Amino acid sequence: MKLLEERIKADGNALNENVLKVDSFLNHQIDPQLMNEIGKEFASLFANEGITKIVTIETSGIAPAVMAGLHMNVPVIFAKKSKSLTLFEAMLTTRVYSFTKQESNDISISKKYISEDDRILIIDDFIANGEAALGLVNLVEMTNAKVAGIGIVIEKSFQPGAQKLKDLGFRVESLARIAKLSNGEVTFVNEKVEELV
Amino acid sequence: MKLLEERIKADGNALNENVLKVDSFLNHQIDPQLMNEIGKEFASLFANEGITKIVTIETSGIAPAVMAGLHMNVPVIFAKKSKSLTLFEAMLTTRVYSFTKQESNDISISKKYISEDDRILIIDDFIANGEAALGLVNLVEMTNAKVAGIGIVIEKSFQPGAQKLKDLGFRVESLARIAKLSNGEVTFVNEKVEELV
Repeated sequence: MKLLEERIKADGNALNENVLKVDSFLNHQIDPQLMNEIGKEFASLFANEGITKIVTIETSGIAPAVMAGLHMNVPVIFAKKSKSLTLFEAMLTTRVYSFTKQESNDISISKKYISEDDRILIIDDFIANGEAALGLVNLVEMTNAKVAGIGIVIEKSFQPGAQKLKDLGFRVESLARIAKLSNGEVTFVNEKVEELV
Repeated sequence: MKLLEERIKADGNALNENVLKVDSFLNHQIDPQLMNEIGKEFASLFANEGITKIVTIETSGIAPAVMAGLHMNVPVIFAKKSKSLTLFEAMLTTRVYSFTKQESNDISISKKYISEDDRILIIDDFIANGEAALGLVNLVEMTNAKVAGIGIVIEKSFQPGAQKLKDLGFRVESLARIAKLSNGEVTFVNEKVEELV
């Protein structure tokens, strides 16, 4: 997605070879117009998958997921990282390790909002090692619903998550695919191909 | 906002005299179409306030805030409840007590995204005792920007938060104002007035 790649080039901050900071438009400050375009793009990519619900994870997945839900006209459910006093009904829980935060978290969704007839689109802001996305796949599969696709805003293609999910048979669509972070520079997968030609 | 009040009547769950559960369209499952209408309503209510940025707090403030940002064409910043490894720049922090969760949390925003020329609209999903909104007011005032309004999706008018903020001179607009929760029933402020007539 050209608009997103341009924004990453302009405002993303490659802190080191592993960490891309996009706090100015996605992870702390959010650009609603960009999120709207991202939502449209997911809606178009997964238009033929019969999606009935979107599942994401708090916090940074919510904005792109809600915009995708708006354009696909389906509800969005966000998995929670901690238990709430006001969520009493049966929760499905799985454990996710975050390499960025170097900690494990239980993530949960309520059984109530997903049925086995649902076709789920999983959306998240980043994919690196794939732990969060795999956790969401686990939660969805516990409900016997079908994971019909996985939409990622920014894929760190130099880490194994996206490939791992594709190897498991899932359709993964990432709107920006990063081949390399170095010296404060971001190189996308399509640029790398061009360089090699 | 009629659409929201109807939705609360239909799908809200008054767990007891203090807790209204709206997990089916706001706090766990999100209805993007409803959020879009909520965003439009905030944009219309605060159209003459010269808003330059929206500030909300993770997690449930994000969806309504981003939709308001879309219709007002301004960025959204969400305050974070815990420190992130990838947020290195100067953070402004204040402490907020949650009566619902019975715990205190530090909430933070980066200095970088708010300047003293900004006119800020604070948006949150609920107001009860007003602790979260007051925390956001504190954070904004640390930047010397102006709080130009406070938009709340659901106000528990039987608790003191909204009045506290009005007494401090802030314009508070709540899209649904709850007078009473009892026996699983929700009574709105406007219904109560009608009953008394």
